[in-house]
Amino acid sequence: MTTSAAGLRASVDAAHAAFEKARTADPSTRAGWLDAVAAGLEKDADVLVALAAKETHLAEARLRGELKRSTFQLGLFADEIRNGEHFDATIDHADQEWGMGPRPDLRRYNVPLGVVGVFGASNFPFAFSVMGGDSASALAAGCAVVHKAHDGHLQLALRTAETVVAALDAAGAPSGLFSLVTGRAAAEALVDHPLVKAIGFTGSTAGGRALFNRAAARPEPIPFFGELGGINAVFVTGKAWNARAGEIIGGYANSFTLGMGQFCTKPGLLFVPRGHSDAVRTRLEQALAGFTPAPLLSERLHEGFTGAVRGLRATKGVDVLVEGDFAECPAPTVLRTSAAAVREDPSILRQEMFGPASLMVEYGDESELPALAGLLEGQLTTTLQAEADDDVADLAERLTDISGRVLWNGWPTGVTVSYAQHHGGPYPATSSNTTSVGTAAIRRFLRPVAYQSFPVERLPEPLQDANPWRVPQRVDGEWRRPGTDSGTRAGEVK
Amino acid sequence: MTTSAAGLRASVDAAHAAFEKARTADPSTRAGWLDAVAAGLEKDADVLVALAAKETHLAEARLRGELKRSTFQLGLFADEIRNGEHFDATIDHADQEWGMGPRPDLRRYNVPLGVVGVFGASNFPFAFSVMGGDSASALAAGCAVVHKAHDGHLQLALRTAETVVAALDAAGAPSGLFSLVTGRAAAEALVDHPLVKAIGFTGSTAGGRALFNRAAARPEPIPFFGELGGINAVFVTGKAWNARAGEIIGGYANSFTLGMGQFCTKPGLLFVPRGHSDAVRTRLEQALAGFTPAPLLSERLHEGFTGAVRGLRATKGVDVLVEGDFAECPAPTVLRTSAAAVREDPSILRQEMFGPASLMVEYGDESELPALAGLLEGQLTTTLQAEADDDVADLAERLTDISGRVLWNGWPTGVTVSYAQHHGGPYPATSSNTTSVGTAAIRRFLRPVAYQSFPVERLPEPLQDANPWRVPQRVDGEWRRPGTDSGTRAGEVK
Repeated sequence: MTTSAAGLRASVDAAHAAFEKARTADPSTRAGWLDAVAAGLEKDADVLVALAAKETHLAEARLRGELKRSTFQLGLFADEIRNGEHFDATIDHADQEWGMGPRPDLRRYNVPLGVVGVFGASNFPFAFSVMGGDSASALAAGCAVVHKAHDGHLQLALRTAETVVAALDAAGAPSGLFSLVTGRAAAEALVDHPLVKAIGFTGSTAGGRALFNRAAARPEPIPFFGELGGINAVFVTGKAWNARAGEIIGGYANSFTLGMGQFCTKPGLLFVPRGHSDAVRTRLEQALAGFTPAPLLSERLHEGFTGAVRGLRATKGVDVLVEGDFAECPAPTVLRTSAAAVREDPSILRQEMFGPASLMVEYGDESELPALAGLLEGQLTTTLQAEADDDVADLAERLTDISGRVLWNGWPTGVTVSYAQHHGGPYPATSSNTTSVGTAAIRRFLRPVAYQSFPVERLPEPLQDANPWRVPQRVDGEWRRPGTDSGTRAGEVK
Repeated sequence: MTTSAAGLRASVDAAHAAFEKARTADPSTRAGWLDAVAAGLEKDADVLVALAAKETHLAEARLRGELKRSTFQLGLFADEIRNGEHFDATIDHADQEWGMGPRPDLRRYNVPLGVVGVFGASNFPFAFSVMGGDSASALAAGCAVVHKAHDGHLQLALRTAETVVAALDAAGAPSGLFSLVTGRAAAEALVDHPLVKAIGFTGSTAGGRALFNRAAARPEPIPFFGELGGINAVFVTGKAWNARAGEIIGGYANSFTLGMGQFCTKPGLLFVPRGHSDAVRTRLEQALAGFTPAPLLSERLHEGFTGAVRGLRATKGVDVLVEGDFAECPAPTVLRTSAAAVREDPSILRQEMFGPASLMVEYGDESELPALAGLLEGQLTTTLQAEADDDVADLAERLTDISGRVLWNGWPTGVTVSYAQHHGGPYPATSSNTTSVGTAAIRRFLRPVAYQSFPVERLPEPLQDANPWRVPQRVDGEWRRPGTDSGTRAGEVK
């Protein structure tokens, strides 16, 4: 079942009409819609998880955890918009003494973009799919969402959309605020439709770049928020290696095989001191001994994984440290190369193997590491495995340059949803300077509008001096945040 | 004199090296560089204004005002980064009880993008040129700037750059942090250079779109912050017309001819009730009687203006209300059309005439106005001329949809630099959802980075619990803003 051209247009038109109706909703009404969707998903958890398990081969515990992540996210975003953080309400009163000459009364806040197209990811059937981070943040911003289902879990997507639409209807949201479309033609038409004002995408670099190009080539270009490739290099210093090689290998083995290695944050590169290959192989084999392989998400991804691993192991300077296989349930593979080889051919560092495989890079001296980091493309995450007295300031600076998130003695899989999270990074990690996880994801779907000399009663609520919605306001340069307890009024808090 | 390919590469490489050196500068050091540049421009004001007058035909008073605007802007941005607002510092402490499962310590702040290419505009030889809003906001963000001079005021640009470079050197900024290049080949190479991470542009829609496309087509696409076209529709209600037609015509005449109509915020469209043409012509002629024409900025713009006005007046449904001319110092032209004509051919509403000309659109009934607004493309500004008891809620909503700034009973020329300013708007007004004027312009040149589980002494200052730079921090969801007086410490303020 694929959405026809007329069906796509009808979805976008209905979404636009719903957006227009929903725009006057106050934050607590809109937050209520998000909470209702979360409650609906929780109520239908059993049927949804069962469908997801069947279509994705992922384990039930993982799927329940992922669904919890998605409903928690909806609740956190609901709280964020109740607080009014997303408005960025800014009020400059008229000022005859303003330094460059008299200024008029000027007030700015953020308004939603309109209809957003959201593409589901194969590897997170809940958290980056129908009601994942992109849909949740777009709805929180006040946008309407037309979701392009991923073929990899189509029945789940259709069923999830039913739950979402029913929950929104019951909560009183305008009909059409969320809808689902399927098929490649509808996907392209979604990017092209003049009423669509932004795209959220999680998927491959190649597919994402094609859609990015399409969005940029429109008569009216629109932002394309693409979360694309993930290599996630990890750097182990000599001291860290000497102090805790076993623990590091164990953590690495666990992280790169988690969820069968099908995370965009999978550590795909591990830089280690050279000369320990036999010991590493033994330790890896021990660490992987208890691992139970499962099928990959889809036949297509299985083929892609097989091709990527075979391609990289056939590359000059690369050999096999731990031999995996490409059975229906593939055993993990660890490839090995050297700093010299990647200096000669940096493309070795840029091959994503989406599945349970990773590449170990042996270096001779720690002083090489900043330059090796310089050979990497943009990364969602990079990690330092180092000791307290290591001198890694230069390396940390290089990692900041190329990363969305830098970890210290941790592992990149497992991305919490919080205020400070940043799940992004320079291209090709993402196609923008924004995050697709955490409360800051909401900002992507907003744009500022300023009002000059407007009568107070005609201003949107967040820009009124009386601040009826009790949102944070920056007034003549100073932030005023209403306290969360009812005893504190806006004007009293600086 | 045009910059060679090697010269362009040398400028970008030097800028990148300076960016790397400057990254450790604390906000007050960086703010000091901006203040030094402002002081240098003020010191050299006489020579700069004289050069500008010669190259642009603009009056001295206007040029002095524009220079003041530019130096004020540098000072305001310096204060903004001293306050640390731009870091958006966000700290989530580790939390075992976090709703979706234990979360690690996670801290996010904004870092500068790197080298920014800035294109100067023809019509603001100071405020949107060498050290205009784009350059000032990029430097404030912590970026280095390579400025492409506009050919229209090349001697001024070269001389201004001398002043800027000397001021930065004297203030101790790293050499290469700002440089100037010239010529079309260097402009294109600037957009293409892999070390350039963003472009700021003010200019025509056609030229801007070509560069936008170029930026999007790079192997690593970069954001293109283009301030492009400006039509700036003004809507006059029947009541406002009845109450103060004379005042409105006077304000309109003044605004569309200000600076010889060479502002991107010039009101290019005025929607008025039909049936008053003779009275309007008389009033316009009165209002324009005292107007002293001057030459346009350049011969090229003069030709463009002539062509645009001739093209529009030859369009079906358009005639001449006030006859201007295309002399070396052109007299103002007002064209006239009807709501019916623009419904038949909406392209009538989308022709920018860069110079002292505007188009009046006569409508039959106020209820037509929201739909007429729907025929407009994205606008930098729109304006309502209305009375207190007018019912214009629908129209105001439509104007919010298509505008960066909406004015009430004012005129769009004159864009103050402040916290709440938004000088942007949907395409083709701009090519992004950002502002090129006001403190929010700084955000364009930053990207977030998160640090997970980092030892406190290795965290950047804005993310340390001790908050040595005394910047606003959002801690576990709650903002804490250090008071500006020395008696208030961070932890005491909520």
